[in-house]
Amino acid sequence: MSKVKNVLFLMADQLRADYLSCYGHPRLHTPNIDALATRGTLFERAYVQSPVCGPSRMSYYTGRYVTSHGATWNNIPLSAGEWTLGDYVRPLGPRVALVGKTHMRVDRDGMARVGLNGESEQGRYVAECGFEPYARDDGLHPDFIYDPDASYERYLRAHGYDGKNLWQDWANSGIDQDGNLLSGWYMRNARAPARIADEHSETAWTTDEAIGFIEAQGDRPWVLHVSYIKPHWPYIVSSPYHDRYGAEDCVPVVRAEQEKTAGHPVYQAFMHHAESEVFSRDEVRETVIPTYMGLIKQLDDHIGRLIACLEAQGRLDDTMIVLTSDHGDYLGDHWLGEKELFHEPSARVPLIVVDPSREADGMRGQRSHALVEAIDLIPTFVDALGGEVPYQRLEGRSLLPLLHGQTAAGEWRQYAVSELDYSFRQARRELGLGASDARAYMIATKDWKCVFYTHFRPQLFDLKNDAGELVDLGDIPAYQDRIREMREMLIEWLQTRKTRVTTTDADIDRLSAFAGKRLIGLW
Amino acid sequence: MSKVKNVLFLMADQLRADYLSCYGHPRLHTPNIDALATRGTLFERAYVQSPVCGPSRMSYYTGRYVTSHGATWNNIPLSAGEWTLGDYVRPLGPRVALVGKTHMRVDRDGMARVGLNGESEQGRYVAECGFEPYARDDGLHPDFIYDPDASYERYLRAHGYDGKNLWQDWANSGIDQDGNLLSGWYMRNARAPARIADEHSETAWTTDEAIGFIEAQGDRPWVLHVSYIKPHWPYIVSSPYHDRYGAEDCVPVVRAEQEKTAGHPVYQAFMHHAESEVFSRDEVRETVIPTYMGLIKQLDDHIGRLIACLEAQGRLDDTMIVLTSDHGDYLGDHWLGEKELFHEPSARVPLIVVDPSREADGMRGQRSHALVEAIDLIPTFVDALGGEVPYQRLEGRSLLPLLHGQTAAGEWRQYAVSELDYSFRQARRELGLGASDARAYMIATKDWKCVFYTHFRPQLFDLKNDAGELVDLGDIPAYQDRIREMREMLIEWLQTRKTRVTTTDADIDRLSAFAGKRLIGLW
Repeated sequence: MSKVKNVLFLMADQLRADYLSCYGHPRLHTPNIDALATRGTLFERAYVQSPVCGPSRMSYYTGRYVTSHGATWNNIPLSAGEWTLGDYVRPLGPRVALVGKTHMRVDRDGMARVGLNGESEQGRYVAECGFEPYARDDGLHPDFIYDPDASYERYLRAHGYDGKNLWQDWANSGIDQDGNLLSGWYMRNARAPARIADEHSETAWTTDEAIGFIEAQGDRPWVLHVSYIKPHWPYIVSSPYHDRYGAEDCVPVVRAEQEKTAGHPVYQAFMHHAESEVFSRDEVRETVIPTYMGLIKQLDDHIGRLIACLEAQGRLDDTMIVLTSDHGDYLGDHWLGEKELFHEPSARVPLIVVDPSREADGMRGQRSHALVEAIDLIPTFVDALGGEVPYQRLEGRSLLPLLHGQTAAGEWRQYAVSELDYSFRQARRELGLGASDARAYMIATKDWKCVFYTHFRPQLFDLKNDAGELVDLGDIPAYQDRIREMREMLIEWLQTRKTRVTTTDADIDRLSAFAGKRLIGLW
Repeated sequence: MSKVKNVLFLMADQLRADYLSCYGHPRLHTPNIDALATRGTLFERAYVQSPVCGPSRMSYYTGRYVTSHGATWNNIPLSAGEWTLGDYVRPLGPRVALVGKTHMRVDRDGMARVGLNGESEQGRYVAECGFEPYARDDGLHPDFIYDPDASYERYLRAHGYDGKNLWQDWANSGIDQDGNLLSGWYMRNARAPARIADEHSETAWTTDEAIGFIEAQGDRPWVLHVSYIKPHWPYIVSSPYHDRYGAEDCVPVVRAEQEKTAGHPVYQAFMHHAESEVFSRDEVRETVIPTYMGLIKQLDDHIGRLIACLEAQGRLDDTMIVLTSDHGDYLGDHWLGEKELFHEPSARVPLIVVDPSREADGMRGQRSHALVEAIDLIPTFVDALGGEVPYQRLEGRSLLPLLHGQTAAGEWRQYAVSELDYSFRQARRELGLGASDARAYMIATKDWKCVFYTHFRPQLFDLKNDAGELVDLGDIPAYQDRIREMREMLIEWLQTRKTRVTTTDADIDRLSAFAGKRLIGLW
């Protein structure tokens, strides 16, 4: 019997798995997150459905691959007809709320078509990706989209901060000795402390809001998505985290000269992006990475506060806790910055699940090497909360069998899939592609990773013998059989996307039992 | 400049293309439909997106492939989030209405999710597949789903017919000399005249309703879907059509012994269906086909009445007229009855388009051999009515360039696609497949047709040298290169389904022009 009554669904933004000590970082200690791993299961091979905020999150929130939900890049509206976490979980009883970021963009045309606006309850849910926006803030508030009413902006104003764009000029800027702003938009300023006090940082605010929700909710069940905006750039952090780490704490960059010269056309074009060129400079890495680490340390400390609140409220025993990220961060590895492509620093994320049920006791502190995906979370939540998983629509799989140690080898999926639509990026223009031709698909198996591109040859990496993914075997004749085999996986995957969403297989089995009683064919 | 103000979208149900004289039937003369072909363009290679009523119609009404809209078989609800003809055309001005059949099944869960029911205007449209149901009747009213309030049932009652199920017992039954009912459900009764007067037949009623709509609408623009239920079974027709044709008027059956012995597993399983076994008997064909022809003759006569109404109303000059069908009918060809598989009698349909614009004058009476699809109609309507075609969602192509003789060879699509989900059918059970594994895809090019099945080898037909599709080359080694080439078309098609529906390519081109002005990558 599951004891799960609540779900605390923690997400960080742009958090690389290997920047947590439980995933092996040698210098950055994250004891609070590590404690979750001790109490739950840590997944070594968790992939996002697209290594970009918007599409990745839409997969987390819909339980469907990017090709299926269609919101293929940031700011592409999620179709009003796509079901989300709230649609699946709310009927089971819990209040389903959001603190922090979703990157949801409203499908205004689709809402208008069914007569919805943001005023009705249904309209609010559709507009907010299924969540009750208890405290939504997507972060990233440059001047040209400044909104004085943003939650965090109002919070800072209430706490006495003064100015026009407090998020930008206080939370994400430092100041020099002459009183000049050191904008966090410029990475050269990364080592400056943010002007804001840590207790008013975005990470602190998000945590406070979450604590407020949990305390107010008391014994009533909930699913709370606590979605931190950090360690996503601007890379700047408040004291004392700003100088906690130095260049000597940086792990070595993972890159090789031959990647540049023998580069794949799409990969090469991504290397030409501004963020890749800047992160290829050691000076930039040594300035930015210590601050990135500081942001993660800050996150870990505040997660500690949040878990302490759960404990104080007596919620540890009936709350499933999940910690993950929407994608990683290249940080100069492979001569790249940011994310989007499919190397492990980008497409792989941390995933730790604590299931308080007795059935999970045998897996506490264990590490699973199963290929798991972001879309597995909704089925896991529905399953843990005692619901029937609507697999006619959800494309992931409940992790409960893995969490309970009940999955035999060979029973789990044999490959993970991630996708990219880079039509918005400079690389697409450099390659002269149309806006519908800039697609890529990753197929990752236990030992191999193959990336298929529309109009270009695939990339192939031998994960077993080349964990750093430094040697692309994609154009080597001896590996074409392997590529063909993995292409068959891609084709199988393309053919099995779930679009027959209004009818279950069980419905069909039931209804088709009458197939012999049709009225045609009678003489 | 287009003159199109209205669209008359005529659909027959289960009408084989080659059972019209303009498509070459030697004995069945359909002068009124032929007259449309003389005034417009006749398409020799028009395919439906699935040779089954429900999914085929949902493709006609959404402008999307079956895989995209997800209503893969009869009675699978169309997702409330799928846009339909009415959503595209109504904003351009016309009243968009339905007379007859859609086979639409409501997605009640999807509607409830967005707070819709059938009472609001939006709810009605979503529930009725985008149409204003001016006079909806889907036909097929056996006793176990009898509805005394069905439109046609009410009509018959108002016209003095008496009994419980007037559709069944009058419109679709005959009577013997002892006063016993001869049910149309039994094909042995096909030659009996239906009890109903022709003027009260389903085909007459549908026509009368359409005429009523057009006359009442006057000069106000409209798109009217006139969707005849016939010549779909029950195969029974009122006098004088019941004995208009005899066994001597039947064209020879198209089948070969080797099809039975060398049959493909799925094809073989379909041959075991009751409707296939019964239609493989000559006695059945000779009883049913003359009545099928009578139903088509009846349809042609009533279409003549409808066109005469258009003319009397002065609407011929500003109305685009389309005639098509939702699929064909095997009628014993290939040892099969009904439809579903992809031989030409099943997947190919008649398609005639009359465009009153001056630009179409050069194509009047012409025959196009372009590979056109059911999903091309919505883009054609939007284009003809002066709208911008939303190709981010619509997967067909406007036929206007073809209708205006402006399409050069090589500019049109190189292959047509049709799909089948046979999970509801006995064949699936016979083959021991799961409800999500019973899928098939047809790729038809100018000269070849290849059918790909999940879990089974493909079928291949040489359309140029084997127009009857009697020789399946799918397992012959010499043809494997051809099959591989056509499989690449299938894969390309799978990869290019339109799911990024909320954003156009033009939007992306516009928005991504700012890609260089991002805030990341600044030192």
